[in-house]
Amino acid sequence: MKFVPAAVVKIDDPLWSKQFALVRDVVLPYMWEILNDRIEYAEKSHCIENFKVAAGLSTDKYYGTVFVDTDLYKWIESVSYCLSVEQNPELEKFCDKAIDLIEAAQQPDGYLSTYFIVIAPGKRWTNLMEGHELYCAGHLIEAGVAHFQATGKVKLLNIACRCADLIDSTFGKDKKRGYPGHPEIELALIRLYEATGEERYLSLADYFISTRGEGENIFAEERKKEGHSYIFPEMAHFECDYFQSHLPVRKQTCAAGHAVRAMYLYSAMADLARLKNDYELIEACERLFENTVSRQMYVTGGVGSAKLGERFTVDFDLPSDSAYAETCASIGLMLFSSRMWLLNRDKACYDIWEQALYNTVLSSMGSDGKHFFYVNPLEVVPQTISKNPMLSHSKTQRQKWFGVACCPPNLARILSSLRGYIYAFDDGCLYILSHIGSSFKKGGLYVKLSNKGDEYTLVIDSDPIDIYLRLPENSELIGNQFENHGSGYFSTHHTGGKQQYSYSLKPMIRLLRAHPSVSALAGKLCVQRGLTTYCVEGIDNAAPLSTYRLPADAVFTEETAEWFDDMPILKTSAYNVSEKNWERKLYGSQPCVYESKEITLIPYKHWGSRGENEMRVWLTEK
Amino acid sequence: MKFVPAAVVKIDDPLWSKQFALVRDVVLPYMWEILNDRIEYAEKSHCIENFKVAAGLSTDKYYGTVFVDTDLYKWIESVSYCLSVEQNPELEKFCDKAIDLIEAAQQPDGYLSTYFIVIAPGKRWTNLMEGHELYCAGHLIEAGVAHFQATGKVKLLNIACRCADLIDSTFGKDKKRGYPGHPEIELALIRLYEATGEERYLSLADYFISTRGEGENIFAEERKKEGHSYIFPEMAHFECDYFQSHLPVRKQTCAAGHAVRAMYLYSAMADLARLKNDYELIEACERLFENTVSRQMYVTGGVGSAKLGERFTVDFDLPSDSAYAETCASIGLMLFSSRMWLLNRDKACYDIWEQALYNTVLSSMGSDGKHFFYVNPLEVVPQTISKNPMLSHSKTQRQKWFGVACCPPNLARILSSLRGYIYAFDDGCLYILSHIGSSFKKGGLYVKLSNKGDEYTLVIDSDPIDIYLRLPENSELIGNQFENHGSGYFSTHHTGGKQQYSYSLKPMIRLLRAHPSVSALAGKLCVQRGLTTYCVEGIDNAAPLSTYRLPADAVFTEETAEWFDDMPILKTSAYNVSEKNWERKLYGSQPCVYESKEITLIPYKHWGSRGENEMRVWLTEK
Repeated sequence: MKFVPAAVVKIDDPLWSKQFALVRDVVLPYMWEILNDRIEYAEKSHCIENFKVAAGLSTDKYYGTVFVDTDLYKWIESVSYCLSVEQNPELEKFCDKAIDLIEAAQQPDGYLSTYFIVIAPGKRWTNLMEGHELYCAGHLIEAGVAHFQATGKVKLLNIACRCADLIDSTFGKDKKRGYPGHPEIELALIRLYEATGEERYLSLADYFISTRGEGENIFAEERKKEGHSYIFPEMAHFECDYFQSHLPVRKQTCAAGHAVRAMYLYSAMADLARLKNDYELIEACERLFENTVSRQMYVTGGVGSAKLGERFTVDFDLPSDSAYAETCASIGLMLFSSRMWLLNRDKACYDIWEQALYNTVLSSMGSDGKHFFYVNPLEVVPQTISKNPMLSHSKTQRQKWFGVACCPPNLARILSSLRGYIYAFDDGCLYILSHIGSSFKKGGLYVKLSNKGDEYTLVIDSDPIDIYLRLPENSELIGNQFENHGSGYFSTHHTGGKQQYSYSLKPMIRLLRAHPSVSALAGKLCVQRGLTTYCVEGIDNAAPLSTYRLPADAVFTEETAEWFDDMPILKTSAYNVSEKNWERKLYGSQPCVYESKEITLIPYKHWGSRGENEMRVWLTEK
Repeated sequence: MKFVPAAVVKIDDPLWSKQFALVRDVVLPYMWEILNDRIEYAEKSHCIENFKVAAGLSTDKYYGTVFVDTDLYKWIESVSYCLSVEQNPELEKFCDKAIDLIEAAQQPDGYLSTYFIVIAPGKRWTNLMEGHELYCAGHLIEAGVAHFQATGKVKLLNIACRCADLIDSTFGKDKKRGYPGHPEIELALIRLYEATGEERYLSLADYFISTRGEGENIFAEERKKEGHSYIFPEMAHFECDYFQSHLPVRKQTCAAGHAVRAMYLYSAMADLARLKNDYELIEACERLFENTVSRQMYVTGGVGSAKLGERFTVDFDLPSDSAYAETCASIGLMLFSSRMWLLNRDKACYDIWEQALYNTVLSSMGSDGKHFFYVNPLEVVPQTISKNPMLSHSKTQRQKWFGVACCPPNLARILSSLRGYIYAFDDGCLYILSHIGSSFKKGGLYVKLSNKGDEYTLVIDSDPIDIYLRLPENSELIGNQFENHGSGYFSTHHTGGKQQYSYSLKPMIRLLRAHPSVSALAGKLCVQRGLTTYCVEGIDNAAPLSTYRLPADAVFTEETAEWFDDMPILKTSAYNVSEKNWERKLYGSQPCVYESKEITLIPYKHWGSRGENEMRVWLTEK
């Protein structure tokens, strides 16, 4: 089973066409300016300049974190996804320029990390824990593959292969023992293998995955070496589980450590498990996915609750206000869940995929395409954030850029490649996994899915095939041409030729509670429409929002918002705990005085769009 | 109005006699061993050794934080409180030895900070922000006064005066401008003034208090000086409000910054306001006290909710699990509230004093007198604390000692001097502020308060006086010899001679809610008996404790505990949210299934005494 690749799918959808156009027309040109340090009052990038320094074309100093190269690679990858559907001479020109620069910076033997080339040329591969050389190489490879698949141009792919070949000749059995501090190379090498058919790349990915956590810990060995110095001094105290190297990957049971690292590693494990049909690895992936989504995931599809270490902590530890829930981690969860679907075809994988996409991922970019969240809390009280240093990572407003800017270009990458995750096809079966209006033609198969509101039209022109429509959680699918297949799919047998099908898919509204073991959410309710999580904001509902009480039988009405059009706002009658009788008192035994109050909820993805104000996802149950 | 000093009051009380004996017989001898580094597996103190190094009696290196001297000073102060009621040759011998050592370390001009003497002899008074020289001097002065008042010996008092005189000749108008980064010298100088009658000390305290926050910030000036280096590098980013130097003290309105600093400063301000009858300062104290206790105090009497900066944050920001609530800050709150009582005779000040004492302060020392809490959370889930670095400051068990060990000797100090806060007397009025069995004879006044359970007997032998008994919040006072005077006092006129009075004082049980603006406590209840806050522990109630629901009309029965005897345990029928139907699910719309469940609550002060397990103060309301 394979996804129908992004390169052949074209989006035509009320929401997603706009989103795709925003990335193409605003986000990517804006990022090009950012990467060239031409946007005022934004955090400095210096990404392009570092490549120039490494290439000997600038005498400036290196600036930025050790992996800032990847911002450019991810940008090229995103541009490539845009170029694969339609020409865009301007983006293509920038892209070619960038690739020339990358080529100029690459060392004769294929090595490429501007940080090490400029700052520490003798220190190559000596600090795999922190150096991010393999991480950078991974993103270079992904960009190279995407650029080749989109444009047919081989220059960046060749750069990537030279780099991959150097890594292959350096690491492995009977060579240098190692694996990266930040996984990414593994899934990139598998992608390179799938693009080129070159088995060496698959074997190298297997080596990195399977060596991890086996025998003496590589990072512990590195630290002991004479002359070792830390790039991130705080990492001196990090335990092996931060790097997912505490156990051989096949023995791991709980999502652990830095959330983005975890998601990238588990994604690569799922790829390798599928390609090798490795049952032990499949089981490990199932366990890790299960633990991630049923024990450590926010209702917004965020993962990694702790700011310190940007990491997974422990089952049920999901505080709303101090939540880290990094944007990149939710993107990683989308990568992981779509790969899990390839392993098990469990439609619930796509519920997670959409839960991450519709909430944390979409929230992370402002509607102008130029402002971003890195951290995605579920509760924000601006004056508390401004005064409590334990919450200083939380921002109440999307930012122009970041000192460490992994998230924005990663957003561009996932949003521009989204169409590569909609369809899967194999052995006479077509799966429609996410109901995004789009079309493709591949081999003898033509598919066009159109939607208008909740009504969907599916045109198929092909040989006989079975069609499976995924039923998203908390939605109702009605279509008499389909039958409920069970396991969350509706299906029909297409008997061949061109035919039109129709169905309606209506998101339902529900109140959710969290598992009783989630301490932070005891006695709380949240509202979902389909898989979109809603929240309340102070601008619609007088703050403090902690005073609201939601009855478990609340009934919601949908209204059209004035300031966004992709979804309704929700209204319901709730209660407000009166602050009367509380003057000068902090604790009291007086009874709660409730006042009826209509409240307005908006999709979480739109929070913070109307200036700084309070926000919360979970309301106290009345 | 003045307190009847500790030196003349003798405790005779079922709870407090034991507590006092524990400090005298166990805590203080144990701490002497600690200060001499003779306890295995405890954090190293090196306190005595540093004095030896400073005195040229040891060639060891300085070790420990910059203010470790104060551990010895606070120890001497505590020993002095013990010596003032009865002889104790062993403690007195250690004490004399310590004082000889302090004398040997003091510089010829009176200067005394072992850190600066040993580490940075040329840097005296150049880093008031971090150097803690004035803080150390303050504790030296307090020890000197207490030791003199207890023993009549002048050696330590003279050392303290030499140090105070040096400070007086160094700082002030037309001398060096300055005030301490950590307040303490101010209240110590006022104490020295009250002990010696020397006006200069009061003026110097006034200078330090009144210069604070006026004109250019001293600490900002210091940082700009050439050659300035930080002792605590993280302080480079601290704002003025961390040090309470953001505004002149008379203009301050909200408790701000490092909580211990704040409490010590505000205590000194209250002293100065009282002695000078300074209305502007009195109003500032009232505002700061009001803000502290009615906007920023935990129900356990803890203050300073954020670990980073050990500080106050903002009104209503009172998370239970990440609470810092340092032991020393609650001790400081006791100092502040008793001084506020001297200013306004508002009995509510003593409700706060007892709330801090009965909960956070008493919780901070284990029943063996050898284990201590520094941080006092209101919710503990051991596996979460062990895995979430945002909670790494929380300990589930009391510790033997700390790298920075301000709290244990401060505990010894407050517990051994408690009897100095029970009675106040002036102008023919006697106030009994805390109902602790005790007696004193002073001038023509003899008072003896005895208690057995809830029954109290008061014997007075004196000229005619008015007697005021404070009615503690959440207690019932019955005594037909007294009339309800209003404002929280019961009173009677003692007509002279020796007479016996009796009354009963019964703590009531109540359920408390927090102000609706406290986000972390929305929909939560806690249980108080008198001013003792109760909590649930996993050892009595199967974890996870987040699953319990308490009805607002819960009725409690008192039972005798097997493992402590100062207070009953409480039982009530509550509910438990079933974890059935939740397997593999993290969020769900299924209704809550409640199961009836009897729960057991114990006084917060005893939590963590039976091994590591879950604890929580606030339960979700059903």
